[in-house]
Amino acid sequence: MTTITINEVGLRDGLQSLQRSMPTADKLRWIDAAYAAGIRHMEVASFVPARLLPQMADADAVVAHALSYPDLQVSVLAPNLRGAENALASGAQRIIAPISVSAAHSLANVRRSPQQMVEEFARMCDLRSGAGRPEVIMVAGMSTAFGCTRQGEVPLSDLCALTRLVLEAGCDQVSLGDTTGYATPGQVAATLDAVRLIAGDKLHAAHFHDTRGLALANSLVAVQHGIRELDASLAGLGGCPFAPGASGNTVTEDLVFMLHGSGFATGIDLPALIASRAVLETGLPGETLYGYIARAGLPTRVPTA
Amino acid sequence: MTTITINEVGLRDGLQSLQRSMPTADKLRWIDAAYAAGIRHMEVASFVPARLLPQMADADAVVAHALSYPDLQVSVLAPNLRGAENALASGAQRIIAPISVSAAHSLANVRRSPQQMVEEFARMCDLRSGAGRPEVIMVAGMSTAFGCTRQGEVPLSDLCALTRLVLEAGCDQVSLGDTTGYATPGQVAATLDAVRLIAGDKLHAAHFHDTRGLALANSLVAVQHGIRELDASLAGLGGCPFAPGASGNTVTEDLVFMLHGSGFATGIDLPALIASRAVLETGLPGETLYGYIARAGLPTRVPTA
Repeated sequence: MTTITINEVGLRDGLQSLQRSMPTADKLRWIDAAYAAGIRHMEVASFVPARLLPQMADADAVVAHALSYPDLQVSVLAPNLRGAENALASGAQRIIAPISVSAAHSLANVRRSPQQMVEEFARMCDLRSGAGRPEVIMVAGMSTAFGCTRQGEVPLSDLCALTRLVLEAGCDQVSLGDTTGYATPGQVAATLDAVRLIAGDKLHAAHFHDTRGLALANSLVAVQHGIRELDASLAGLGGCPFAPGASGNTVTEDLVFMLHGSGFATGIDLPALIASRAVLETGLPGETLYGYIARAGLPTRVPTA
Repeated sequence: MTTITINEVGLRDGLQSLQRSMPTADKLRWIDAAYAAGIRHMEVASFVPARLLPQMADADAVVAHALSYPDLQVSVLAPNLRGAENALASGAQRIIAPISVSAAHSLANVRRSPQQMVEEFARMCDLRSGAGRPEVIMVAGMSTAFGCTRQGEVPLSDLCALTRLVLEAGCDQVSLGDTTGYATPGQVAATLDAVRLIAGDKLHAAHFHDTRGLALANSLVAVQHGIRELDASLAGLGGCPFAPGASGNTVTEDLVFMLHGSGFATGIDLPALIASRAVLETGLPGETLYGYIARAGLPTRVPTA
């Protein structure tokens, strides 16, 4: 049975998009609950100045706790060299740099053009190697890969050109992000096939938002086209402040339900994962929790009385 | 470009599941708006006693209005011989009989076992022919084809056996219905492949509910496995009173967005279809309207200022 890796990004992409902060103790409980449910890959923090993103001010403590689980792969986001320095110091095992294909989104999100961001990413990759940490995985998180609320259509040729540049810059993995919830299944299929011709096995992951209801269908098509790692967020927390209306990452528990029902393994205990939503109810009281399977319940598999 | 037929079932499956009735005049406006948006296949009524389903008491008037559009295929549901008589008298061009694979669901829904329902369906097919209306299409709507809230798992072998019987009974088209929202993409693929071996080209349509968030992914897999007609309901209205929690058919406008974005034609004008939701706001004030694309809006395809 083929295994699909679920990368739980709620602690980073989910919490980063909220106005309020989750208390550190609740974040640690979230990590514990996710691990207990079988999650082995988590993106737990962003290394950005606390004055810009106070939600991420406790990144070091969160990463340290995640690293207490020896078989949990701990990823963080870093938008620049300074962030990468802090990420490396924290001990994080994988660093994702947000590289927007849309210039308009890139300027709004990281105040750099895509080309300038690639240059920064090259410096980040060099820093990793220079710091004697070659085992740290450097990921180019290709944002707005499927369209942009500011720019409109994002040509596939732009994505392909930028992918070539990030590979030259030293990237280990490419992740395609539908930051704005624009992707459709046909577009996902064509885009993955095109990028794979350039990136080969370095095309690693995909990141969808459910803005237009297609996160699960897009995830399915990604798997059909060879992707073996998918980002998702417990209860669909998340969005991007510079992509209006893009609230809601793929719902982790709905994704796991779909994959298990489609012949894929994830290593995740779905009832335990659903139960772990209680951490969000405690740590983010009143927050909207998305997700179908938690509301409808798992299908009845044995006869009822 | 491959065309997928969208069968708008909101006037039947959507309205049938509500406690209240939509005024007849609003139903006719809905038909007008759907037709104007490019819908050419609609399931508009159930022929059942008005004391059981007062929402469908105006079936004759609704069918008559739908038939005023010469190129609109008008389908109705009929659960028994009496319903089929009335359906034929109304002039409907396609009659769907609900045939549950789950005995528990069948008894609750039509007060007959699956085998008894097949026998009734055979009489309905004979009636159609005897009435000199051989052009009327008889559809076996295989309910609970993917699982049942009452029975639990529905073995694929039961579905296959019942499919053989409905074909012998004279059915023209087989439609597989995920009445309870249990289906997963892998199950849809395997089920369609198995039923196609039995029914061949008579395996015609699929009907999904979004109870567990998979209506769009399941629809996509159905198309990938040769289905060219899909049921859906404007704003996702619908459900089954005997399938608890099964609220929400596939949302027509989200389905059209997905299909158009995946290289399929539907003949539907998506902005006009989205605008047609206004009919529901007028005819069913306060009713929950589902759907992502109506809320998030179509992606920006041209640069914004």
